[in-house]
Amino acid sequence: MDTATIAGNTAWVLTAVIAVALMLPGLALFYGGMVSRKTAMNMMLMVFGSFCVVGVLWIAFGYSAVFGNSIGGLGLLGNPLEFAGLGQLLTAPDDAALPPLALAALHLMFAGLTAGIVAGAAADRMKFGAWLAFAGIWASLVYFPVAHWVFAFDSADGSVRGGWIANTLGAIDYAGSTAIHVNSGVAALALALVLGKRRTWPVQPKAHSLPLTLLGVGLLFTGWIGFDGSGLGAADNNAAVAVFNTVAATCAGVVVWLLVEKIRDGHPTTLGASSGAIAALVAITPSCGAVTPLAALAIGGAAGAVCYFAVALKYKLGFDDALDVTALHFIGGVVGGLLIGILSTPEAPSGGAGLLYGGGFELLGRQALAILAVFAYTFSVTWVIAKVLDLTMGIRVAAPVEAKGLDISLHAENAYENGEDKAHAPRGHAEQLHHLVGQAAVEEKPAPTAR
Amino acid sequence: MDTATIAGNTAWVLTAVIAVALMLPGLALFYGGMVSRKTAMNMMLMVFGSFCVVGVLWIAFGYSAVFGNSIGGLGLLGNPLEFAGLGQLLTAPDDAALPPLALAALHLMFAGLTAGIVAGAAADRMKFGAWLAFAGIWASLVYFPVAHWVFAFDSADGSVRGGWIANTLGAIDYAGSTAIHVNSGVAALALALVLGKRRTWPVQPKAHSLPLTLLGVGLLFTGWIGFDGSGLGAADNNAAVAVFNTVAATCAGVVVWLLVEKIRDGHPTTLGASSGAIAALVAITPSCGAVTPLAALAIGGAAGAVCYFAVALKYKLGFDDALDVTALHFIGGVVGGLLIGILSTPEAPSGGAGLLYGGGFELLGRQALAILAVFAYTFSVTWVIAKVLDLTMGIRVAAPVEAKGLDISLHAENAYENGEDKAHAPRGHAEQLHHLVGQAAVEEKPAPTAR
Amino acid sequence: MDTATIAGNTAWVLTAVIAVALMLPGLALFYGGMVSRKTAMNMMLMVFGSFCVVGVLWIAFGYSAVFGNSIGGLGLLGNPLEFAGLGQLLTAPDDAALPPLALAALHLMFAGLTAGIVAGAAADRMKFGAWLAFAGIWASLVYFPVAHWVFAFDSADGSVRGGWIANTLGAIDYAGSTAIHVNSGVAALALALVLGKRRTWPVQPKAHSLPLTLLGVGLLFTGWIGFDGSGLGAADNNAAVAVFNTVAATCAGVVVWLLVEKIRDGHPTTLGASSGAIAALVAITPSCGAVTPLAALAIGGAAGAVCYFAVALKYKLGFDDALDVTALHFIGGVVGGLLIGILSTPEAPSGGAGLLYGGGFELLGRQALAILAVFAYTFSVTWVIAKVLDLTMGIRVAAPVEAKGLDISLHAENAYENGEDKAHAPRGHAEQLHHLVGQAAVEEKPAPTAR
Repeated sequence: MDTATIAGNTAWVLTAVIAVALMLPGLALFYGGMVSRKTAMNMMLMVFGSFCVVGVLWIAFGYSAVFGNSIGGLGLLGNPLEFAGLGQLLTAPDDAALPPLALAALHLMFAGLTAGIVAGAAADRMKFGAWLAFAGIWASLVYFPVAHWVFAFDSADGSVRGGWIANTLGAIDYAGSTAIHVNSGVAALALALVLGKRRTWPVQPKAHSLPLTLLGVGLLFTGWIGFDGSGLGAADNNAAVAVFNTVAATCAGVVVWLLVEKIRDGHPTTLGASSGAIAALVAITPSCGAVTPLAALAIGGAAGAVCYFAVALKYKLGFDDALDVTALHFIGGVVGGLLIGILSTPEAPSGGAGLLYGGGFELLGRQALAILAVFAYTFSVTWVIAKVLDLTMGIRVAAPVEAKGLDISLHAENAYENGEDKAHAPRGHAEQLHHLVGQAAVEEKPAPTAR
Repeated sequence: MDTATIAGNTAWVLTAVIAVALMLPGLALFYGGMVSRKTAMNMMLMVFGSFCVVGVLWIAFGYSAVFGNSIGGLGLLGNPLEFAGLGQLLTAPDDAALPPLALAALHLMFAGLTAGIVAGAAADRMKFGAWLAFAGIWASLVYFPVAHWVFAFDSADGSVRGGWIANTLGAIDYAGSTAIHVNSGVAALALALVLGKRRTWPVQPKAHSLPLTLLGVGLLFTGWIGFDGSGLGAADNNAAVAVFNTVAATCAGVVVWLLVEKIRDGHPTTLGASSGAIAALVAITPSCGAVTPLAALAIGGAAGAVCYFAVALKYKLGFDDALDVTALHFIGGVVGGLLIGILSTPEAPSGGAGLLYGGGFELLGRQALAILAVFAYTFSVTWVIAKVLDLTMGIRVAAPVEAKGLDISLHAENAYENGEDKAHAPRGHAEQLHHLVGQAAVEEKPAPTAR
Repeated sequence: MDTATIAGNTAWVLTAVIAVALMLPGLALFYGGMVSRKTAMNMMLMVFGSFCVVGVLWIAFGYSAVFGNSIGGLGLLGNPLEFAGLGQLLTAPDDAALPPLALAALHLMFAGLTAGIVAGAAADRMKFGAWLAFAGIWASLVYFPVAHWVFAFDSADGSVRGGWIANTLGAIDYAGSTAIHVNSGVAALALALVLGKRRTWPVQPKAHSLPLTLLGVGLLFTGWIGFDGSGLGAADNNAAVAVFNTVAATCAGVVVWLLVEKIRDGHPTTLGASSGAIAALVAITPSCGAVTPLAALAIGGAAGAVCYFAVALKYKLGFDDALDVTALHFIGGVVGGLLIGILSTPEAPSGGAGLLYGGGFELLGRQALAILAVFAYTFSVTWVIAKVLDLTMGIRVAAPVEAKGLDISLHAENAYENGEDKAHAPRGHAEQLHHLVGQAAVEEKPAPTAR
């Protein structure tokens, strides 16, 4: 590839890194706004903290586990030591279509955010240290392998082997929904089951700040355009199709969720619009390069309707997936993954023939198999990780901590301070301030005891 | 054009799509922060909801109505069926300077946001369903035609005919201010007149969250750089000039508005800085590629000063344009559109000779004619649309709903929850929770009755 | 350079302008969230206002002072009249690797934001007009010269002379940490000393909104990727390395700060994570193109740990740098600048041989000299500017204003309004409303007197 085209592609992929970086505050606000005032910072810090822990692991061995040569050629896991530390990626080979660290940066973002998505299921009741430990172990044992299955393609000459879903099965997953949304949605279910229900279940706190949640959705939408658009690493027609379909599906998801809400509940809501947008974005992620704009509307709309009803499942089945990660990411991912098998069209730059285009059930079957495999692997391994952590370090906070709210208990912070000036040593230097003004003056205001 | 240059241009235009996507939460927050706590979510949902409705219509027939071959070659409206569904745009012709869906995505954003700008005039008193209906009809009957006039250029060989302002009149409108700001500002005036004044007029609620408003301005500023910079669809010197002048004008608009406020009111305010930024951004939109950086400062500064005084008009003339859409977008658009006729310079990559550069009054006349035509068409058609909707479905909420605030009445939501845990079934599944904990526990907290 | 590669580079640099534009609301929120409710808007408006003032000066003479031919070839200051008004930059020379206004736009952002960083030291007690005056004079006398030292490279043929740090000394500063972070951190110290401590010192208000602060960090992180990635103006492997290392360092900075906090204070906090991210981003700015990913982790982690302890210095030394600008930007900049001398590697695309790679102490010495020079120049000149302003117009608000909070006193605004509808004329047109409803109804609610 000529250097000028590489410049264009590099500009676009690095732009996608920037766009996807917006999903970090986006996800933190989307979740943080939905919980109560007294756990908002814990929720947001879970998202930021796990991103950073996974980012460090990505450099240590995660990139290698995903993009390294498949161990034994089995397509199950890349060699985690192959590029350990990533020093080898500082130089771009002459024949590289992209600088290797551009791709590595994009996928660091994906890995870090996927762990954060899971956090929504654990709201209001998980120890912070246990969460970070869970996130690191889960990324290592679940995300990196599954990402290898989906994202690692065999090299053209066959010398480097990639993952089984991408190569042997040949399921279509344009921007990685299987590795990211199906995966995180299933992990959320397993973690919620091990954690158990919040003590107030089924009564739950209302969203403490819908403006923050809606802003979070806006940032996620923005970042998702870069996420989907960079799926093939080039600034070309493929990218334009992926971008357009991503926006199209979002519009339909919001409109449909609002309509269903209006009909069934009498009120279109902000939380509904937000949920419709996320459901549609999840569903269009695997198919954004494989369908027409009208099909993108259908996929987004279908996700909006199906996920609306999926939210009720937790009440029927009795698991406390606090922020509906399973309903939006797993069910949304299933809707999107399967609809590829029906709506994928050879007209689209990355599409094969789905059921509606004469392709029969073959593609649909491959899509279903990919989802089933991830469900089985992720659910079981995630459940074991959570259980082992629970039996060793413990993952659930004590009842008084849960009642009081995690922010003041675990982080000695309140999201908002309304009051008068008070003694305060910012950034943890209480001892300095003690020396200056005496112990009494710097005491934390005790949080109001709930109930 | 060679494929490498297309890659660079595609990277830039898709980046602009991402940047302009930030204007969706940006506009929602800018408006949402300025209204009271009890209508904040309604305001934000008006922006998100109309964006999505118009986005769906864009795919159905809007793109065709704007970029389709002009019906009868009249330059008034593109053929709305020509590209219906946009399936034809999945493939990029060999001679295309850009993938067609990249341009379609950018203009979907423009259309969806333009409807949202109008919403600011209708704050606090419009039925939500009526707003979505208005937005869809207004986009179809007003935005799409006017966008055809401005954005659709004749093809080089003359086989495809575009709009009359762009081709026959030849007014300069680099990034589409006539179609977007003059248009939405005039529509806001017509809608405000049909809706009537809020019942508390001229007493109005104060901005409930200035940090959200200022954040909204920051996101709008960011997105506007991509908006203006992508006006000609290429990553070249034109784009750099447009970007620079956009930033320059914003700086001047803020400084001038703060100065005028300080002199006349004694206080420079956050709301003033925000208004100065928006006024300047509106005014530089049509001229960003046609003037020098010093002229950009002059245009931004002039818009800051003129729009400051324009805000007072609604009190003098007695129309309740709640968030000053007319003063900022229509008057700002007029300032920018006319100053092109004076300050445009052949030195700038997209500039002709304005009055100051020896061009006489010809360009100024063309600019004025374009604005007058849009004023006449948009005002009359918008007024009729609003009136017809009012006489059929009704567009104004009842007095108690207005007094109570639209959030709890129309959406069963409060923007903020401060209290203790309470029964709550998120995302509209109240019936599930009723089953589990009984009716009483899940009742909404009644909103305090105002007055 | 061929036009296609220029298109790719232009796309990337203009993208960086967009990304860096996000740092404007990012910085405003990061600071605004940390102060009390009653000075939040003043803090945010300091950031926006100084950005705009400096932006205007940039066009007038700032660009020339930075990138103009060095006066007398001394490497101390560019000729401030050379490109005054920037009209000469409207056309791109045939041999330009980038459109000149693309670079000018990026550096306008840098200049405007650097002034804003200083504002954090002056929270809660500075006159607004004095702040804007300070910002303009400081940019002219301190920022523009130091930026010339660091950013202006000699032309290839030697006909245009740049700054002494970049050319004569040859220190490594990939993305301009010396000019931006060391510079603003030192200026913050000098300004805090002249301003004096807040009257409640060492008691300080708590952060009034941690979600806004964390969102600010998220936006800063996003923008910083573009900031660092555009350091060499090309969409190539250099950019990818810079982007990757920026993200890597941030992850390490957050993890290390949270760990140190947990060990020393018992609680990992949101404010700690935020501080760790900023410290790491500052430290990686000069070195992002010169080190390996593992070294980026080390640099980010070191900054997190060192800056944690640096925050305590203000209590020991007794200066009221309200938001720890010196600890994060100056100390963080020193950590990053010196670690280049140790960790820089020829393997990295922009690295020389540091101490660990057999380069001896030479590079380390050059790095130290650059920092020392900026410290000496910036501290003394900034101190004089602040002192002269204090003796002439006065820079400190009166005690009652400080107690009452700056928002209502200086800007006649409250960040948040919780109450019922009240008389209100938005955007400073009180006289219009007086006419309509009478004086009494439009009175501002008096702010509660603190203490």
